[in-house]
Amino acid sequence: MSFEKIEAALRKVPDFPNQGIVYIDITPLLQDKDIFASIVDIMAEKYIDNPPKYIVGIEARGFIIGSAMAYKLGCGFVPIRKKGKLPYKTLSVKYELEYGEAEVEVHEDAVKPGDSVLLVDDLLATGGTAAAAAELLEKLGANILGVDFIVELGFLPGREALAKYPIRSLILEK
Amino acid sequence: MSFEKIEAALRKVPDFPNQGIVYIDITPLLQDKDIFASIVDIMAEKYIDNPPKYIVGIEARGFIIGSAMAYKLGCGFVPIRKKGKLPYKTLSVKYELEYGEAEVEVHEDAVKPGDSVLLVDDLLATGGTAAAAAELLEKLGANILGVDFIVELGFLPGREALAKYPIRSLILEK
Repeated sequence: MSFEKIEAALRKVPDFPNQGIVYIDITPLLQDKDIFASIVDIMAEKYIDNPPKYIVGIEARGFIIGSAMAYKLGCGFVPIRKKGKLPYKTLSVKYELEYGEAEVEVHEDAVKPGDSVLLVDDLLATGGTAAAAAELLEKLGANILGVDFIVELGFLPGREALAKYPIRSLILEK
Repeated sequence: MSFEKIEAALRKVPDFPNQGIVYIDITPLLQDKDIFASIVDIMAEKYIDNPPKYIVGIEARGFIIGSAMAYKLGCGFVPIRKKGKLPYKTLSVKYELEYGEAEVEVHEDAVKPGDSVLLVDDLLATGGTAAAAAELLEKLGANILGVDFIVELGFLPGREALAKYPIRSLILEK
């Protein structure tokens, strides 16, 4: 499976969710069984010999790539969710959006101090959500090995928001 | 891995999301790498020799079990999402909640007529969301092989809402 074939399967949807935004739709990549398997395999490959204790996926599309990677690598899976979705005791972090703010949460017993984790999501844009998720994991004392994405929007400063961590993305959109 | 061990890892959280509700929290099952792998393996086993074309997962926890099953079985993965989350052309179905209503959507090109699909979610309660998801798949002409859950609340009439389909659940809560 070539990167070109994976990249060509991305669907760009103009004016979603707002006028002037071109939304990068990964659903065609998930739908194609060969592309889906390749994405998981390529993203997991670096960690095959030394997997993290947990793959941490960010709601909701980070769950899709994260859980398949966790299964492939034999790791546990930890979800980071939007406020109010996790039922047990949580830690939360607020972060700013272009308009307003959002909040993400993790169960306080999801990760123990020193546990190695890989944080994953589908798309790196401004990095706000991923930085808030990383802050949650830091509060729990996790050892964050890196933050991995399927797609990175290279024209936005997402890497700067996550400058403390190794960042990897499968596809760079310029 | 015994079913007893899997079942014992479920966490019951009283009064979430509302007073008097006991919420079944699957996050401890996902967090434990051996339990997580076992759940995926057991749920996928029936389909190993004859996998569906797609595993369809319902947002958001259905993404977690569904995508790992899709990876295991070599299927494509299709997400059914809450209204307004899918960027391309969608079909939608409204359904009633205890208070008010909700709406789920699927991309109109996610499944073609005759495609075999397995619908998965984490929990079967009243079956409202799963029945709406199945209706979406029927509208696209899918051949629904079954609807599979990690946990079924046996004291609620979820099976009746899905009576047209083979239903399987790993854990039956009485």
